[in-house]
Amino acid sequence: MPDGRQVRAGRQLRIGMVGYAFMGAAHSQAWRTVNRVFDLPAAARMVAVCGRDAAAVAAAADRLGWEESVTDWRALVARDDIDVVDICTPGDSHAEIAIAALAAGKHVLCEKPLANTVEEARAMVDAAQAARAHGVRAMCGYNYRRVPAVVLMRQLVADGRLGEIRHVRAAYLQDWIVDPQFPLVWRLQRDKAGSGALGDIGAHIIDLTQYVTGQLITEVCGLTETFVKERPLPSATGPAASSGLAASAELAGAGSGDAATGPVTVDDAALFLARLDGGAVATYEATRFATGRRNALRVEINGSLGTVAFDLERLNELEFHDATRPGAEQGFTRILVTEPDHPYMAAWWPPGHIIGYEHSFTHEVRDFIEAIATGTDPRPSFEDALRVQLVLDAVSCSAAGAGWTSIQEVPAYPRV
Amino acid sequence: MPDGRQVRAGRQLRIGMVGYAFMGAAHSQAWRTVNRVFDLPAAARMVAVCGRDAAAVAAAADRLGWEESVTDWRALVARDDIDVVDICTPGDSHAEIAIAALAAGKHVLCEKPLANTVEEARAMVDAAQAARAHGVRAMCGYNYRRVPAVVLMRQLVADGRLGEIRHVRAAYLQDWIVDPQFPLVWRLQRDKAGSGALGDIGAHIIDLTQYVTGQLITEVCGLTETFVKERPLPSATGPAASSGLAASAELAGAGSGDAATGPVTVDDAALFLARLDGGAVATYEATRFATGRRNALRVEINGSLGTVAFDLERLNELEFHDATRPGAEQGFTRILVTEPDHPYMAAWWPPGHIIGYEHSFTHEVRDFIEAIATGTDPRPSFEDALRVQLVLDAVSCSAAGAGWTSIQEVPAYPRV
Amino acid sequence: MPDGRQVRAGRQLRIGMVGYAFMGAAHSQAWRTVNRVFDLPAAARMVAVCGRDAAAVAAAADRLGWEESVTDWRALVARDDIDVVDICTPGDSHAEIAIAALAAGKHVLCEKPLANTVEEARAMVDAAQAARAHGVRAMCGYNYRRVPAVVLMRQLVADGRLGEIRHVRAAYLQDWIVDPQFPLVWRLQRDKAGSGALGDIGAHIIDLTQYVTGQLITEVCGLTETFVKERPLPSATGPAASSGLAASAELAGAGSGDAATGPVTVDDAALFLARLDGGAVATYEATRFATGRRNALRVEINGSLGTVAFDLERLNELEFHDATRPGAEQGFTRILVTEPDHPYMAAWWPPGHIIGYEHSFTHEVRDFIEAIATGTDPRPSFEDALRVQLVLDAVSCSAAGAGWTSIQEVPAYPRV
Amino acid sequence: MPDGRQVRAGRQLRIGMVGYAFMGAAHSQAWRTVNRVFDLPAAARMVAVCGRDAAAVAAAADRLGWEESVTDWRALVARDDIDVVDICTPGDSHAEIAIAALAAGKHVLCEKPLANTVEEARAMVDAAQAARAHGVRAMCGYNYRRVPAVVLMRQLVADGRLGEIRHVRAAYLQDWIVDPQFPLVWRLQRDKAGSGALGDIGAHIIDLTQYVTGQLITEVCGLTETFVKERPLPSATGPAASSGLAASAELAGAGSGDAATGPVTVDDAALFLARLDGGAVATYEATRFATGRRNALRVEINGSLGTVAFDLERLNELEFHDATRPGAEQGFTRILVTEPDHPYMAAWWPPGHIIGYEHSFTHEVRDFIEAIATGTDPRPSFEDALRVQLVLDAVSCSAAGAGWTSIQEVPAYPRV
Repeated sequence: MPDGRQVRAGRQLRIGMVGYAFMGAAHSQAWRTVNRVFDLPAAARMVAVCGRDAAAVAAAADRLGWEESVTDWRALVARDDIDVVDICTPGDSHAEIAIAALAAGKHVLCEKPLANTVEEARAMVDAAQAARAHGVRAMCGYNYRRVPAVVLMRQLVADGRLGEIRHVRAAYLQDWIVDPQFPLVWRLQRDKAGSGALGDIGAHIIDLTQYVTGQLITEVCGLTETFVKERPLPSATGPAASSGLAASAELAGAGSGDAATGPVTVDDAALFLARLDGGAVATYEATRFATGRRNALRVEINGSLGTVAFDLERLNELEFHDATRPGAEQGFTRILVTEPDHPYMAAWWPPGHIIGYEHSFTHEVRDFIEAIATGTDPRPSFEDALRVQLVLDAVSCSAAGAGWTSIQEVPAYPRV
Repeated sequence: MPDGRQVRAGRQLRIGMVGYAFMGAAHSQAWRTVNRVFDLPAAARMVAVCGRDAAAVAAAADRLGWEESVTDWRALVARDDIDVVDICTPGDSHAEIAIAALAAGKHVLCEKPLANTVEEARAMVDAAQAARAHGVRAMCGYNYRRVPAVVLMRQLVADGRLGEIRHVRAAYLQDWIVDPQFPLVWRLQRDKAGSGALGDIGAHIIDLTQYVTGQLITEVCGLTETFVKERPLPSATGPAASSGLAASAELAGAGSGDAATGPVTVDDAALFLARLDGGAVATYEATRFATGRRNALRVEINGSLGTVAFDLERLNELEFHDATRPGAEQGFTRILVTEPDHPYMAAWWPPGHIIGYEHSFTHEVRDFIEAIATGTDPRPSFEDALRVQLVLDAVSCSAAGAGWTSIQEVPAYPRV
Repeated sequence: MPDGRQVRAGRQLRIGMVGYAFMGAAHSQAWRTVNRVFDLPAAARMVAVCGRDAAAVAAAADRLGWEESVTDWRALVARDDIDVVDICTPGDSHAEIAIAALAAGKHVLCEKPLANTVEEARAMVDAAQAARAHGVRAMCGYNYRRVPAVVLMRQLVADGRLGEIRHVRAAYLQDWIVDPQFPLVWRLQRDKAGSGALGDIGAHIIDLTQYVTGQLITEVCGLTETFVKERPLPSATGPAASSGLAASAELAGAGSGDAATGPVTVDDAALFLARLDGGAVATYEATRFATGRRNALRVEINGSLGTVAFDLERLNELEFHDATRPGAEQGFTRILVTEPDHPYMAAWWPPGHIIGYEHSFTHEVRDFIEAIATGTDPRPSFEDALRVQLVLDAVSCSAAGAGWTSIQEVPAYPRV
Repeated sequence: MPDGRQVRAGRQLRIGMVGYAFMGAAHSQAWRTVNRVFDLPAAARMVAVCGRDAAAVAAAADRLGWEESVTDWRALVARDDIDVVDICTPGDSHAEIAIAALAAGKHVLCEKPLANTVEEARAMVDAAQAARAHGVRAMCGYNYRRVPAVVLMRQLVADGRLGEIRHVRAAYLQDWIVDPQFPLVWRLQRDKAGSGALGDIGAHIIDLTQYVTGQLITEVCGLTETFVKERPLPSATGPAASSGLAASAELAGAGSGDAATGPVTVDDAALFLARLDGGAVATYEATRFATGRRNALRVEINGSLGTVAFDLERLNELEFHDATRPGAEQGFTRILVTEPDHPYMAAWWPPGHIIGYEHSFTHEVRDFIEAIATGTDPRPSFEDALRVQLVLDAVSCSAAGAGWTSIQEVPAYPRV
């Protein structure tokens, strides 16, 4: 019996998701919700979730609302009854899964960062370009592009309200590993995660600022630091990772004994300066050691006519300074981005009724569904995500001693 | 085939909802989500939604995720396959539906305010007390009791961290009808809504402050004001009500012609002073004319040892001043209420990843399900809600000329 | 030898000040500074300060910069070499000194509240009106009228930027006597102070809101409360009063023994509702028991077109919501009131360099000097101050059981 | 006739000031006020102010309160009746005046930055060290060290409340030359000012962060940018510079014709990364192009146990996060730094009554007077200021192409 959503939508998109930890929970919430809130030309059906541990993935399917659970992602991406593959695994498996899925004709939504290396990312772009020729879509999950206040920032920039962009000031500040006893989870291991704060949260501010300004970073100079160089190996039962929906399987692949320690092989913090191709200069900082800053993604952009400032801990708000207003009335206007004429918000609650973190994912899959159904290219494309990857790589090189480092171009695709 | 949630939960609660406008959408989101996030001893199944307009309610069922739609609430509350009746209609039908549902042995969740008159509310309390004797549960939907920061406020008060309560300062400020051309929707008609700002949003701050302080209001003195006394009748196609999930059916029962106007029969604003039975003095203000304040429910409570302050527009935050700290370090601490040891938050995202308005409803049905499954009385009970009703009534009397007015007691039930 | 200021100014105003505690220190700072910052048609010369304790007033003269100290205010106001009498004593002596000084042809600046009773205030108005006929000026020291952000509020209202005023929300929150061991200083004794929070800080928000809105309060209904009814008598050496410039002589007239206590004869808090003659409704609250709020004078005014909000703890800022802006850009603009085109600010530092509490007094004496020199009437006049007094009196009556109480008119003088 | 302040103080310090523009006005306010507020072992007497334009400096003396005006600084520093030389000129004359004054046995207060070049600064340090041997004191005017909230930050760090310092995040954001028509004032000319944003405001955050953390910068990597490369020459009557007390003589030495333009020879913005010798990593940014940020000196310091954050536009506040508090109560505490037990504040107003920008100078001369009177070395010493100069120089070298650049040591003096 067809679900009413599908009748209304006219078309069904059958989703298979790989990975079911923090990101898997967030994506599941989005797939469950999107057609309840938005009128879309296709309806998502949550067919199967995939993981290595059969019992754990079955429990996750049950909790998160997937029709079935499977343990072989290769089988999953080959199934005829799957239209979309949603990749929520650690970065070391993104390339293999995404390339296989695209080759099998599945639309792919891949969590960020796109890959752990530029080489993998380039291969994924090649696969996406080949698939695009057949109408198969690929998108990378930089979900903060879908925060309404972020879209509003981009609109203000695009409408010329900021004038010429002079400064970008971006920081993503967290503090979840300040305690040296916090265990050596996969996010602190280079072979799993590629890098530390740089790729995990630095990637977000690189993508977000390129998206909002419409400018690309051309060169960087940076440093990375690992403050705590050795950490306890995680135990299976430890209080290690995150809470609630985020917790399950975040420790997958982790060690055993409580007393043992291992080396932290990624950066705790990455700082860099940059120049953008529209003439702006920028500071970027990503750290997991900003005590008290739980999840402070902060961006400020100064232009010749105005300024915007955003903080993810207050994601329903945007501060906008319009320097063309009369002098005595100028100031930072705290826009509560909950009006019907704000991006995405007409579908939600009345003005002043705020939304949360998870809504960015609902908006992300909303746009992905629409792109698939209307045959357009979703953004951020894999090319966009490669652009982030190239910056991450340049920062790593710079921090390793290269000083100012230029970013390679990605000529094949129109800029953001 | 049983849903995995039910197997996990061990028991199914079959829900029938009456009304499907703003509150219906919010409750549906909650019922859909609650078992995906919380581990509970029972699982909600969204069996049927009820409304007068068959086509409209069918569309709502489809969008909101109900298995079927019906048009006769009397038939719905009599069905054997319904365990819970969730009442989301305007206040003028609460009493009739709730009493019938309780008589039929259904657990009832009734939106606030409990009723349009004290008489109705008293009859509902009688019904709830009779039902309670048979293990049938009744709860009123003052959802802001389930905002984590609000629960944290209550805990701080209950733990003695504020000392003796001196002041309560409560305001619920909105601005959605500042424009005199905003139409005469049902919320502006006394026969449908009972009162205006007073019962709609004033009720929230009355309940919330009694809940947080554990003190009951003993006397009030107030005024009400209707700034715009005549408004255009709503047209069927008008831009009248709220956006998105909130919009449908908010205009039910509204008039026709565009040029015609009608009298506003409720208050635009209600202001009152109060004394509480623990010795605190208080100011309350509810208004729909606070230009720029979209949804600013603000509460501040000053005690001899500390202060808490809350604003619904930043519902993930609580300001706490602890006057027992060293003088040079005192100040208002902005607690981001997203930690695993904050109420409800262990089930959601990692620290710093904020939640939204709708989560208060998810928490509400979470607690309601748990109360039913464990055979305990959910709060706010109908008695608690009657207490609010008695205050609303006293404010109306006071504003009509009675001056200081005492609140009648509700002796039958332990205080909050 | 004439001071350069006087040559520049062309005229000298010789000041005699009575009282030298908190307000005396603040006024001295203002007299010392005003001609250094503002170009004025007259220059203040700090001739003499008067107090009962010869040694203490001599020390104060030395510290605060007065040429001499005297102990007999009657002699002071009679001196030929005094042009202006500045009254900084407790309220119980205002009337006698002011009336004598005006009769002697001295311009008078009298600290607020004007008097301890309406009768005294009326007599002072009579004296001021008689003096006015001879070009002798009288002004009451409601210094917050001279905070630049407050003047900006008034300008926005006067320019129609708020439209029709709907709501006034005013609170003056302090917490300096939350500790029950804080001693029984003169401000807690009715015979000295007239009233407690009501006259001390409630008077400020009454005057300020009447000034900003241009509306007068027509009726009030209120309550007062004394939470701590008995306090230790202050010792001569106790840590009783305020700090620094504020401290000296605040305990004048206080008792002796440490163990003894006495009754608090004034209110700790006063709350009232009000209606204004332009149609606005209002809440007012003045308290010394708002734990953590050191000096939070907060005013918010909602109009049909906009809102302004102010907090004295951030006195360089004004929040302004302009509801005529495009919907997606509306919000509260935090105006940093430090621009050259903001009131008084062209004389101070560059934009963004903030001013402090004491600057309000510098602005006050600036305007007073200018009024004297140009032969115009300074505001707030004694009539304006009487209007505050009548509201204070009505609140006291209301709190004593009178319920809603009308404010008597002061017909003799144009409204603010 | 001795001023009472001197009798009380027991000793007089006779001040001669060179320069009377923005900084001259600020210092004058401080000298006039300091003995009125603080009990000190010596009293300042404002003997003479010096400038090149006899009429202008005479007017300034009159306005600012100096006994006389002179035009030859060499004569001034040689006078027997001068004890202290206060240097408020542009940076190009600091070295010559300071060295001469020290050689003449005068205590010297020199505005920041100490000099325009490292060579000059080194010569000044030599002079200061020679003078120190004779009890003659030298101090550099980094006035923000005297903001009470800044001192509180330093105390918290020094007391170990932040644990190990991980991150320093410093920005000084202004926007007064965003308009390309703003004229080419002396601050935009390398020969007068040495550098642009870097030395003018970047110097402040370098000094402030070294002071607060007790760590010294060891290496930097940065960039500078000049966004507007050509500007109109200032006219004598132009609206060019700042307002009020700040305005006079800011244009000294400026050109003539309105149509003519000239090259901007300093940086509009300087950004750099740094490492500190205690292990912290840092970002620094100084810009005059941060539209809407009038005077936003912002510093945040993250340690293993806590964080402090400061913004000069709200200089009475300090945000402190104490990570040793119970998890559910952690957050940023907004400390209103106006308590008697906060640095300097016991001398001012009661709690909650804020101070302004100019008070930092009053505190600066307070400490300078005390150091002279008690025979101790005031800080920041010229050595401290040289440390800033070396960082400025390294940033310039780095920005010119040197990449990561080490800071030379200043071994002769104990670190801050």
